[in-house]
This record gives sequence, C-alpha cells and structure tokens, in this order.
Amino acid sequence: MKDISLTRRFAAYVQKDAAYALALRTMYFDMATIAPKKGAAYRSNLLSILSGEAFAHATSKSTIALLQKVADQSDDRFAQDQAKAILKDLEKIRFIPKKQYVEFNKLCNDAEVEWELAREEKDFSRFAPYLHRLIEGTKANVKTRRRTECDYDVLLGDYEPNMTQVEYDRFFAVVKEKLVPFLHRLLTEGVKPDTSFLYKVYPVDKQKQFMEILKEALCVDPKSSYLATSAHPFSSSLSKFDNRITVRYLADNVASAIFSLIHEVGHATYNHQVDQVYEGTVFFDNMSMGMHESQSRMMENMLGRNKSFWVNLYPKLVALFPENLSEVSLDQWVAAINAVEPGFIRTEADELTYPLHILLRYEVERGFFDGSVTVDNVEAVWNQKIHDFLGLNVKDSAEGVLQDIHWSSASFGYFPTYALGSAYSAQWMVAMRKDLNVEQLLEEGRMDLIKQWLMEKIHTYGGKRQADELLKEVTGESFNPMHYVDYLIDKYSALYQLK
Amino acid sequence: MKDISLTRRFAAYVQKDAAYALALRTMYFDMATIAPKKGAAYRSNLLSILSGEAFAHATSKSTIALLQKVADQSDDRFAQDQAKAILKDLEKIRFIPKKQYVEFNKLCNDAEVEWELAREEKDFSRFAPYLHRLIEGTKANVKTRRRTECDYDVLLGDYEPNMTQVEYDRFFAVVKEKLVPFLHRLLTEGVKPDTSFLYKVYPVDKQKQFMEILKEALCVDPKSSYLATSAHPFSSSLSKFDNRITVRYLADNVASAIFSLIHEVGHATYNHQVDQVYEGTVFFDNMSMGMHESQSRMMENMLGRNKSFWVNLYPKLVALFPENLSEVSLDQWVAAINAVEPGFIRTEADELTYPLHILLRYEVERGFFDGSVTVDNVEAVWNQKIHDFLGLNVKDSAEGVLQDIHWSSASFGYFPTYALGSAYSAQWMVAMRKDLNVEQLLEEGRMDLIKQWLMEKIHTYGGKRQADELLKEVTGESFNPMHYVDYLIDKYSALYQLK
Repeated sequence: MKDISLTRRFAAYVQKDAAYALALRTMYFDMATIAPKKGAAYRSNLLSILSGEAFAHATSKSTIALLQKVADQSDDRFAQDQAKAILKDLEKIRFIPKKQYVEFNKLCNDAEVEWELAREEKDFSRFAPYLHRLIEGTKANVKTRRRTECDYDVLLGDYEPNMTQVEYDRFFAVVKEKLVPFLHRLLTEGVKPDTSFLYKVYPVDKQKQFMEILKEALCVDPKSSYLATSAHPFSSSLSKFDNRITVRYLADNVASAIFSLIHEVGHATYNHQVDQVYEGTVFFDNMSMGMHESQSRMMENMLGRNKSFWVNLYPKLVALFPENLSEVSLDQWVAAINAVEPGFIRTEADELTYPLHILLRYEVERGFFDGSVTVDNVEAVWNQKIHDFLGLNVKDSAEGVLQDIHWSSASFGYFPTYALGSAYSAQWMVAMRKDLNVEQLLEEGRMDLIKQWLMEKIHTYGGKRQADELLKEVTGESFNPMHYVDYLIDKYSALYQLK
Repeated sequence: MKDISLTRRFAAYVQKDAAYALALRTMYFDMATIAPKKGAAYRSNLLSILSGEAFAHATSKSTIALLQKVADQSDDRFAQDQAKAILKDLEKIRFIPKKQYVEFNKLCNDAEVEWELAREEKDFSRFAPYLHRLIEGTKANVKTRRRTECDYDVLLGDYEPNMTQVEYDRFFAVVKEKLVPFLHRLLTEGVKPDTSFLYKVYPVDKQKQFMEILKEALCVDPKSSYLATSAHPFSSSLSKFDNRITVRYLADNVASAIFSLIHEVGHATYNHQVDQVYEGTVFFDNMSMGMHESQSRMMENMLGRNKSFWVNLYPKLVALFPENLSEVSLDQWVAAINAVEPGFIRTEADELTYPLHILLRYEVERGFFDGSVTVDNVEAVWNQKIHDFLGLNVKDSAEGVLQDIHWSSASFGYFPTYALGSAYSAQWMVAMRKDLNVEQLLEEGRMDLIKQWLMEKIHTYGGKRQADELLKEVTGESFNPMHYVDYLIDKYSALYQLK
C-alpha cells in the first residue's frame, strides 16, 4: 500500500510539473510570435510570478523529499529513473543558500540589461565588472555541489554529460590543427562560388509559399506542427504531437528562412520521435545540448545543404522566383548555399568557420576558470584569436566579445556543445550511410525513411540514454572528431575544386 | 504593521490569481487558433490540471479567510472592494459540499458529450435525462447559498446583478407585445431587400485584406490587439493592452466575418478602455454579461450596420470585390446587411428576430424553475413558441431545443442577458446622441470619438460600477425597454418602407 501511494504522489508531482511547463512554453511561444507589444509589461510580470510558482513546486522541501524517496525506495524502476534524473538536474541549484541564489539571479537580470547597453555602445568596459561577478558567482554556485571535478568540468558536464576539458581539448585540438590551415588553403587556392543571387529581392509572401513546399519535402506532419514568424528563429516542442517552429523572413536573403526552417525541423523531429512513454516526463526533453544540436545541424547541413536534397526541390524554388534564379543552375545554387565566408559573427557563420568561432569561445571560457583569461585581457585574447583563426581584425566589441548573450546569463560551458553537435552529426552520418543510400533517398524525396532511421537509432530514447552510450551502440565507436574534420575537408575540397 | 502585512498578502493573492488567469487564457486562445490538432489530448489533460491548481488557489480555506479578513478589516478601501466582489463571486460555489461539487462537474462534462451526440442524432430524448439532472442539480447548488430569493432569481442575478424575474417579465412583455406583431407586419407589408449578392464567392484572402481596412475604420490599435482565425468567433482580453479577437471566414458569405469582427471589437474595446488601475484585478472583467453584450451589439448593429459607417468604407469593399458588388449601391448594401429573415437558429438570427429567440428561452427557463416546463414537455413548448413568435414549424430538435450548448453546462439564467444587452445599447445610444452627432462622426471616420465617449461614460469603470447605476447616471433613467423597441420599429419601418 505504501508504495502505491508513493507512486501516486510522484505521478501527481510529474503531472503538475508538466502542466506548469506547458503553460510557460505556450506563453513564451505566444510572446515571441503574436502577443501585442503593448501588453508586454503586464505579461512579463505575471509570467515571472508563474515561473516562480513552477520553481517553488519543483524545488520545495517536500518535492525534494519525495524525489529522494522515489529514487531510493520505489519499486517502480521507471519512476526511480525519472526521480534520479530530476535530482541530478536539481543538483545545480538545490544546495545554493537562498540569499546567494536570489542575489545571483538578480545579477543575471542586471547583467543582461548591461550587456545589451554595452553592446549598443560598443563598450566592453561597461559589461566587464558584471562578467567578473558572473564568473565568481558561478564558481561559488558550483562549490555548493561539493563535486570533485574542477569548476569548468562541472559546468561542461551540466550541458553535456561525460564531457570534460580532457575530451574537449582533444576535440578542439583536432579542429584547430586541421581546419585552420584548411580554411586558409581553401580561401587562397579554391574557386569561390558566386553568392550574389542569394541576396536579390525575394518577396516574403512567396518565401512563405516555399516554406509549405519545404515542409512537405522534410516530411513535417501538419497536424502535429505549427510554423510561425518571430524575431529569432527557434523551435519549442510542447509535446510529442505539438512541435512549434519559427523563422524570420529577410526580403533580401532567400537562404536565411530556408535553412532556419530546416535547422529547427531537425530539433523538432527529435522531440516528435521520442517514444510516447516519455511524453510529459523529464526524458521527453532532457537530451544533452550536443545531442540536440547534432540533430538540427545534421538536418540543416548534411541533409539540407546536400545537392541530392535540392534535385527535385530547386526547380520549385526557381518557379517561385524566376526573375532571380532562372539563370542559376542547380550546381550554382548548391555551391552558393555552402559558400565559406569568414566573418565576425558566430550566428552568421558558414558550416566550416562555425567551429572556429566555438573553438575561440571554448579557449576563452577555459581561461576564465583556470585564471589565464580575465575581464582585463579577454577582449585582447578574443581579437587575437579571431585574427589567428579567421584572419580578421575586430573593429569593435559589438562584433567581438560582446556579440553573444550567453555569458550575461552565466551560461558558461554551453558554447562547446554547438561544435560538438556538428561533430556528433558527422559520426551519425557515417553510421547512417552503412544502412541507407542517403543521396538516393534524398533525391527520391524519402526523408521519411531517413527520419525513421534517426527515430529507431536515436530519437526514440529521448534523454533516457546519453551521447557516449548511443554513439558506441549506433556507430560502433566512442566520439571520434576525425569524422567531422574529414567530412568538412572532403566536402569543401570538392566544392572549391581544390587539387 | 498588521494591516500592511494583510495588504501585502492580498496583493500577492491577486497577482497569483491573475497569473493563473493569464496562463489559462493564453492556452485557450492558442488552442482555439493555432495549436496542432494531434496535441489535443496531452494539452487538454494538463490544462485541466492547471485549472485545478488555479481553482484550488482561488477557493482554498486560507484564501477565503484572507478575503474575509480584507473585506471586514482592511483600511485599504480598494482592496476591501475587490475582496467583497471576489467573495460575492465565490458564493456561487463555496458552500457546495465537495462531493456534490465534484458530482455536478462530472454531470456537466457528461451532459455536454451527450448533448453533442443527441444533437447529431436529432434525438432530444437522449439528452432529456441529463437536462433533468442539470436542473435539479442547479437547484441543489443554489440551496447551499441560503438566499431568500427563488432559485431562478438567484441565477438571473449571477449573470446580471439587480435583474430578477420581475424586471425581466416587464422587459420581455414589451418585446413580445410590440415586436411579434411588428415582425408580422414587416414581413407581410414591407419591401424585402435583395440579399443574394451577399452569398456569392468571396475569396478568403481578400476578405482578410478587408479585415485590415475594417480594423482601421474601427480605430483598433494594432499594438494592443491581435486578430486570428478560429472555428467560432470570440474575443479574449488578456490585459488592457492585449485584446485578442478571432473570426471565421466563409467563402460564400461576405457579411459573416465582417460583423463578427465588429461585434468582437465591441467586446474588446470595453476591456481595452477600462481604467488601468483595475488591470489584473477582479474589476477588469467582472462586468455583467448584459453590460458586455450591450457594447458588442451596439458596435455591431447600431454603429456597424449604420449607413453612415459604410459611406466611406463600402467603396473599399467594392474595390476588393468588383465582380460581386460593382452593381450594388450603398443603399442596397445597407438594406441587405440589415435584412430580416426569420429562422430556427439563434446564432444566425438578424437584429429584429434575435430578441424573440431569447424571449422563448427566457420563458422556457422560467418554466424549468417554477415547474411549468419539464423535460417531458419542453420540446413541444419550444416548437409552439417558435411557431407563435416567428411563424415557423420546427422539423427536428437539432434546429430546435438542442441547438444551444448553454443548458448542457447548466448556464441557466445566461440567455436573457443577450437580449438585455441589445436593449441597454439602445438606451446608451439615446444618451450618446445627446452629446454627439453619431452619423456625422461615422461618416467622418471618427470612431475614436465615439469610443472616447464610451470610455468616459461606461468603459473606464470596468466591473466596479453596475448597469443600473450607470444607466441612471449616463441616460438619466433606469433601464427602459421602450428605447430598444422604438429603435427597432423606427429602423425597420424605414428600411422596409412601411407606411
């Protein structure tokens, strides 16, 4: 009898937690897409009150006691696994004294405001004292967890379990040794494709028409998804059968919305294909950041920028924009959407230079926590690395050290997963190619079969199984960054006609 | 000190209540407009859990104790007024024993399902036992409140304070005596306008274009409103500056979406113009149903179907649909959108026959509670009245007694407010005409000045002041149904060229 009541209490806790999560996600989606602007102040005040309720429910003493009891004593294995995963996640905050927690939250809120102002004014010194306090505050928070690893390893593990500086050092060493010289060779010896036609006038209503064609090509189920417009593209899976995606349309850039959509469909497909038994539980969306990014980047770059994907699709795009594209061949289109153009801004980077932006951030963050980089020298370090990796000279901090929001919310350890996800996806592709003729399926419009492979091998497990375990099972080896580097070098050597 | 803490606790309660309300309204709006269909089961389960949380917060013993204390002891007059209004609203449920409450809720859920099936099968006998239990259950619920009035008077007062059967009898007697014979005369002696052009093909994308023009003509602020599409038109004000409206487009009916929009803008304008001090409190939207309906029906019928409103607007509609309207004059258009066509379905009724549909429902409901109408004779009573009032013979219960959802959720006492709202609006118009040249303002596109009058006289008070008080203050007399009857008879005598 006792255990039945424990199971019931745990189920009630899980449902209530899921109800809060659904409410908050619906409100965030609404806010980012359609909510009238003048209602922002009222909405954001009440949103923070509801978040506070959700947080109080998730972290109350009675919740922790319940979770602990389920984790230790339940004879329901699934409930036990859930409770352990939730407790592991709560470890990040539950030992922080309340005063420290509140002060740190306030610091993050203030820091984000200051970061925005500093970026506007292109003045890093304005943000510097906040960054210093964010780093010190993060260290103090990590200390409460009494872990044996060093601070940055703990943070890296929060975003990507089983990844520490040892593994990331190995990964980024390969990236740096192989890709920096390759990029240089590509830009000096390769044949640079023409990209000018991507930036002609592409009316937004016609771009929207193409999105419907593109969704069909990606086998997106219209009854379990919704596409909206927002200032920054994102995806939000409210449940297995409710996957929201947003894009942004630029009237002078045809590729922007297209590849945002494909990227977000990669994320959404992951959640859509999680085993239904995990819906409403922690395992529905506690996949690691690297795992999630591996699915979006695979969809965007390895499938979505693949020539075979465009064989049947490109004529439909040309039919919508004959004035811009009727003289552009399929090969010219594919070359343009894969062109390499070193720039200052990470979010605008192409597939090849992107990992170098992440390499830079990894080296800086590691320095923050081993003391070799401080707010006094970070700008100089940043600018030197941009020069070393991309051959560019940073003109101001808005296009340099101030460009990303992440540090202002103390998300140290997050950046490396962006590059890791791309590297994972290269390794998945090697395994997929053993089972499927990817190019043939893409040409035949059978994205459904590619998705099915992903579902069976990866998606169905949600966050229940982790990257290292799945990599070994699906690809037969641990994480191996050589697949990624080989893929990039092969792809770009061909595209840029290197000898 | 004690009182400061009481004020703080009350403020925290109000904010939390508002946060739940905002979350639930956002989720309902999302669900009715864009949420993917396949996510419905998951969403609706968690939505009911969150509603349960909100309900538990609103009705807990500690909440009631707090409200009671604020109502009795607070020296903050505004807080005291709010607490009293909330307690008055809670009176409807707080004395019902929990078992009775849960059983009644279950009955309502089951009854709604059965009602839908019964309507599909056109078989009232299937719904009859539920209707019987709903009436008996409602009486039992009213009994817990230990009020001195009879049951139906209590219910009428829940929807419209200060209105009982005495007042409604007086109102509906005038409606019946004046409008039933007038309708007969109109249909036999009047010149019936041509309406055929309203039902030609009107492509939805062009109708949507006209909505933008119409919103401008109605002075709807784009930064504090949002227009979407849903199966049934509705409006939902999430806050003063966040007013959502939906319409439904019919490709073979140009008037449907237009007058739905104007009607819902009437509702939305009311909430939008409430004094900001009431935002987030009970007074933001506890106006009586009759008051709210008076604003939507005034906007739709007295302003929106007014010839002067269309003088500058109609050419813009013709420009969008020249193939249907270029041969139709402004006068023909105005006659058509005001045409009288007796029918079986309340929601499709024109301005003149609408109150007769409500008269019927009022007489039936009154019969339910004085015992003169039962589930055994209600269908016969209904059909006889439709014949007496509209001269029509009901063929089946789907177009008769089963057409409305209201009774399946035990909303007895709600229907009469629909007609009352129309009657209020005629009385407001008489007062407005003393201050403003309505037709001139409509022709000049100065809906903003009409709205300003409504704001200053009515809207600004939200639910803080009630209909009878405002009627006396603004119009100089208590509710007087003759304004309504006179308005309808004058309007239709002219339109139908009665001698």
